[in-house]
Amino acid sequence: MKAHVYVTLKKTVLDPQGATVARALNGMGHPEIAAVRQGKFFEIEIAPGASQASIAATLDQIAADVLSNPVIEEYRVEIVP
Amino acid sequence: MKAHVYVTLKKTVLDPQGATVARALNGMGHPEIAAVRQGKFFEIEIAPGASQASIAATLDQIAADVLSNPVIEEYRVEIVP
Repeated sequence: MKAHVYVTLKKTVLDPQGATVARALNGMGHPEIAAVRQGKFFEIEIAPGASQASIAATLDQIAADVLSNPVIEEYRVEIVP
Repeated sequence: MKAHVYVTLKKTVLDPQGATVARALNGMGHPEIAAVRQGKFFEIEIAPGASQASIAATLDQIAADVLSNPVIEEYRVEIVP
């Protein structure tokens, strides 16, 4: 079993890295790119014996406590069977 | 229209950052985490007037040339209507 965790800056937080990528792409002849926001992405492999019932709660806790900074970031957990 | 681009290290490339996250999680009482691989994630907003026909090819080119290093990374483009 696998899980994907996507961590992105909250909409209200300025993302200078993404803004720079967008500006660079515009300068490289891609005016159709209006905005870019960059985030992190974790592919987590779960041991085969792990309890199916508790894994969603565990992953949520891991994403909130370790993988993201809840003050400025939000996360999304997706379990891939 | 939006697009998501996911950039991850190729399976054959060592990911020390992901390995460190996995080891840290194991040490924090999460033995069910077998492995972690970390990647990047771009949320791209496309200008409303952009040509629908060429946008897929454009995004593919942007992902290959700018957002990823094709020697060690692979990417996936997902267009969100």
